[in-house]
Amino acid sequence: MRIKEFHEKFSSACEAVIISDPKNIYYFTGFYPHSPSYLLIENDLNLKLMVPELEYEDAKKNSKNTEIINLKKELPIDFLIKTLQEQNKFKILGFESEYMTVSTYLKLTQKLKSIEFKSITELLNSTREVKIPKEIEYLEKAAQIADVGIETAINNIEEGKMEIEIAGEVEYNMRKAGSEKTPFDTIIASGPNSALPHATASERKIQKGDFIIVDIGATYKGYCSDMTRTICFDKPSQKQLEIFNLVLNAHQESMQVARAGVDIKNVDVIARDMIKKAGYEFIHSLGHGVGLDVHEDPTLSFKSKNKLKQNSVITIEPGVYIPDFGGVRIEDMYQVLKDKVKNLTKSKQNICI
Amino acid sequence: MRIKEFHEKFSSACEAVIISDPKNIYYFTGFYPHSPSYLLIENDLNLKLMVPELEYEDAKKNSKNTEIINLKKELPIDFLIKTLQEQNKFKILGFESEYMTVSTYLKLTQKLKSIEFKSITELLNSTREVKIPKEIEYLEKAAQIADVGIETAINNIEEGKMEIEIAGEVEYNMRKAGSEKTPFDTIIASGPNSALPHATASERKIQKGDFIIVDIGATYKGYCSDMTRTICFDKPSQKQLEIFNLVLNAHQESMQVARAGVDIKNVDVIARDMIKKAGYEFIHSLGHGVGLDVHEDPTLSFKSKNKLKQNSVITIEPGVYIPDFGGVRIEDMYQVLKDKVKNLTKSKQNICI
Repeated sequence: MRIKEFHEKFSSACEAVIISDPKNIYYFTGFYPHSPSYLLIENDLNLKLMVPELEYEDAKKNSKNTEIINLKKELPIDFLIKTLQEQNKFKILGFESEYMTVSTYLKLTQKLKSIEFKSITELLNSTREVKIPKEIEYLEKAAQIADVGIETAINNIEEGKMEIEIAGEVEYNMRKAGSEKTPFDTIIASGPNSALPHATASERKIQKGDFIIVDIGATYKGYCSDMTRTICFDKPSQKQLEIFNLVLNAHQESMQVARAGVDIKNVDVIARDMIKKAGYEFIHSLGHGVGLDVHEDPTLSFKSKNKLKQNSVITIEPGVYIPDFGGVRIEDMYQVLKDKVKNLTKSKQNICI
Repeated sequence: MRIKEFHEKFSSACEAVIISDPKNIYYFTGFYPHSPSYLLIENDLNLKLMVPELEYEDAKKNSKNTEIINLKKELPIDFLIKTLQEQNKFKILGFESEYMTVSTYLKLTQKLKSIEFKSITELLNSTREVKIPKEIEYLEKAAQIADVGIETAINNIEEGKMEIEIAGEVEYNMRKAGSEKTPFDTIIASGPNSALPHATASERKIQKGDFIIVDIGATYKGYCSDMTRTICFDKPSQKQLEIFNLVLNAHQESMQVARAGVDIKNVDVIARDMIKKAGYEFIHSLGHGVGLDVHEDPTLSFKSKNKLKQNSVITIEPGVYIPDFGGVRIEDMYQVLKDKVKNLTKSKQNICI
């Protein structure tokens, strides 16, 4: 189904498409290669997947509606070039401009001078942006597993415990709940570390009075989840409470307007303005799409010119960070519906221990 | 120190270098960015790191000898182009051709027409290939953590247990032993799955009579480990024993000749020929370098034209895979010394349960 939709988009722009991002290969074939492989999608919807010998048995077993070609000892790029030279039938070929490296591109363009290479990144991203029910199901399951992770983090808050210890327990319980891997480095950022939006987990021991940002994800059937809770360890101070409630309200207000067809920038700006008016800065985007990539289209930014699409899955995650003091971020995953968003994240947002 | 060595290599080829692979940024500055960032290394060894606002505090805290530029709301690529246009002082600029995407490359080359872009991938890879004592120390620690993982796998072999359950326990104990993350998907491949070199971990329940391939890695201070053991669950059959001993001997024989200055292809060919002579196929390379990337230079292949370098760290991992029957792979990490290799992996190679 998705291949037909994608085909409708690319067929007027090019005669065939080369796919090399393993996530996209999985998206179209059901097989996730762990070594460099190429998928050639022709205009007649023929799928040819070229895999190194060590992936061949696995590819045959796990792919659907795809011809599998065993590259034996040949380099994937050499085989691809040879195939395209021999076929000599394409004038315009689509490729993933935000995945393919310059090195591969220069080899292809130098050896295949009669072919024009055209980026299909946007067509591909916009196809992936809208999820089918199976994908929503996997994303919902991935979100449920992350809920288990949050519960684990809460249960492990203890004075003197290291951030990495908590991260270990969180990942373990998510694994046991069915996660295939953590789609990004688990963030357990306590005290001053919580002021660093991309801190991961350190050997810092948590203390009473800390904000503890828990930003975690799981993977189910290749689909990612992403959620953040900020735990107040001990009774929050006045300033902590003020920041926490500000971020929580900004989250809620943005969420209220999110629905299919709404201008993305308007969703971002609601949270941004609230934070600004309260005298703080909001230094990142409001959120992002989630799917096979933990960050994918759409980007929820005040610069966006796009609208939210029905059945896309997005995060909303405003944050406030005060150097050396701490930070708060609250992030849920939402399915965009016609007239509202559906929260895929079940953990409560307000956590004081 | 490494920056000086790298500078010696690139200074005759170009006037400055743009680095965007976060691993390389970490390598030169000590700071690992989690959002797109650019490091500009000029010929006078000035390091300028351009980071988005949400990385700024972290970058200031964790980088060394580097000027940190806060991009605020500007896109990293736009800022980089603007900076290079304003400076207007470089004619030849080095870049990572095997990391930079076509999309970024086309933007740079279209906006900076007077600059010639030159790949410094090989110079960079050959710098990273040879490790300094600190890096060896981190790699050794990462290998020790993977040893804990192997021990965990062995202790968890039990009839009816799922591969993913064992993977979860392995990752948990490696985390507790100090691993920051698993540098690749943990492989627990049992029975017929062991015949798929890149299978990861499934819901298959392990059974007596299985080969169980355990291919795992840990990360310490960004440095990866990679090791594989094949466990015979129950008394091995005659055929299992034959394959196991063949792979073990191929490993040992290759390892015996590995040392600084030896032709890499000769090391690969020893294992390859032994496996071939016994009537089996060897469908992947003998091994690879390990460092900040779990796969980096050198590639231990029969096609290699290079020699092993002193203080590189490599894996040796011959394997035999028989579809529907099972497979064996045995992989250790070695530091290449002047006249031998030093094994960084301590787990015993012969495991029967």
